[in-house]
Amino acid sequence: MSTLTPDQLDRLRVVLVSARNPLNIGAAARAMSNFGFSRLRVVNPYEVAFREARSAVGAGAVLENAEEFSSVAEAVADCTLVVGTTALGNRELHHPLRQLAYGARLIRQRLASSPVALLFGSEKYGLTNEDLSYCHWLMRIPTRKEHGSMNLGQAVAVALYELIREPRAATVKPEPIKPAAAGDIDRLTALLLEALQASGYTNPRTAKSTEEKVRRLVRRLNLPARDIEIWLGIFRQILWKLSGGGR
Amino acid sequence: MSTLTPDQLDRLRVVLVSARNPLNIGAAARAMSNFGFSRLRVVNPYEVAFREARSAVGAGAVLENAEEFSSVAEAVADCTLVVGTTALGNRELHHPLRQLAYGARLIRQRLASSPVALLFGSEKYGLTNEDLSYCHWLMRIPTRKEHGSMNLGQAVAVALYELIREPRAATVKPEPIKPAAAGDIDRLTALLLEALQASGYTNPRTAKSTEEKVRRLVRRLNLPARDIEIWLGIFRQILWKLSGGGR
Repeated sequence: MSTLTPDQLDRLRVVLVSARNPLNIGAAARAMSNFGFSRLRVVNPYEVAFREARSAVGAGAVLENAEEFSSVAEAVADCTLVVGTTALGNRELHHPLRQLAYGARLIRQRLASSPVALLFGSEKYGLTNEDLSYCHWLMRIPTRKEHGSMNLGQAVAVALYELIREPRAATVKPEPIKPAAAGDIDRLTALLLEALQASGYTNPRTAKSTEEKVRRLVRRLNLPARDIEIWLGIFRQILWKLSGGGR
Repeated sequence: MSTLTPDQLDRLRVVLVSARNPLNIGAAARAMSNFGFSRLRVVNPYEVAFREARSAVGAGAVLENAEEFSSVAEAVADCTLVVGTTALGNRELHHPLRQLAYGARLIRQRLASSPVALLFGSEKYGLTNEDLSYCHWLMRIPTRKEHGSMNLGQAVAVALYELIREPRAATVKPEPIKPAAAGDIDRLTALLLEALQASGYTNPRTAKSTEEKVRRLVRRLNLPARDIEIWLGIFRQILWKLSGGGR
């Protein structure tokens, strides 16, 4: 039924961050199977919940093949687009926020050429600001203000439905410029942070919030994959010099 | 957020026929509340399940006001359009079958003038042929043939989302990200070039061609105007340090 090709379906990674309820993990996996997606990734789930969900009767292939990660960074490292989902209103947002219907179209475009990660936060708290700092932008399901927060399994089902809904999806063209993978962007971010420390730009006391700001700053650059090595080289050299190299 | 008026939202009756699982009844009610619908009707539910769902913490207004009926006939008596949902394939169909996106459009039209009933069957068997005999037509969520049957709560969430889904959302543009002016990009490029010299990254003999490479490199970043001052500040600081500042 899906309007996405098998390759496109296979390029989406559904990432559940700190999921607590085995029923929700199972429900997310079931919705993925219903709509033809297969790549489920969980980031430090409540262990018991993950084991329970996995051993549930008819858990199916999606859960059996689910991959476990200890950090968001690792879970999205192979993706060129990282999108967070949010119930909105519960925090100050530093990211562009897109309606589900429009955001899904951008995701389908990217799926035509490279892997995309779709993040869902814990049932209780959603995605933390640190989780969000790995996202290029956020997507919101149009729930009403008075009761915005959706059940995790239902939010996954609705988001995936929107992804396979668009009839013309299969015909979208890949983008000309291949974007850098999240893992490469992380390496560059790490070097930049080191340089900011070494140059005295950052204040150790506020390091944490600075780190998130810088992570968002670098993600707003739309770095092309072809340039990553050059930028890494530039900052390695600057860092070498900053730390007294050649003196 | 909804594209339906309060009157239209109030005209939809979500009818759960023979629901067996209190969690599913609760999930259906929650999705209704998320998307602004309030009229839940249950037809001979498994009593214990219904009581449990109702007494659940935070069951909310939708469940409290849920109406109970002993037959589909009574539950849909006040509606001018009765639509059944199905996973298809599991029985011979005697009704017109419509895709969710198209069916929802017809339902929205009817909601403009009179009440519509949307029927969901039991988790195990779906709607029986007798239930279906009260329906004008059937609607199907586009799940894949190999795994068509959805979780009840998720099916309700997806169907209701399609009903309130902004028809024009797909064409709505997000706030465009204002790109940096060429002059600002040049100032940044100049600072970067100085830093490359100071760090020994560039070789004076090939400076000219390097300069052009770096200029193209920086332009490929699509720098947002809002970030230009931050980047200028970062490189000024790095440069200051590279040229022995603070030593």
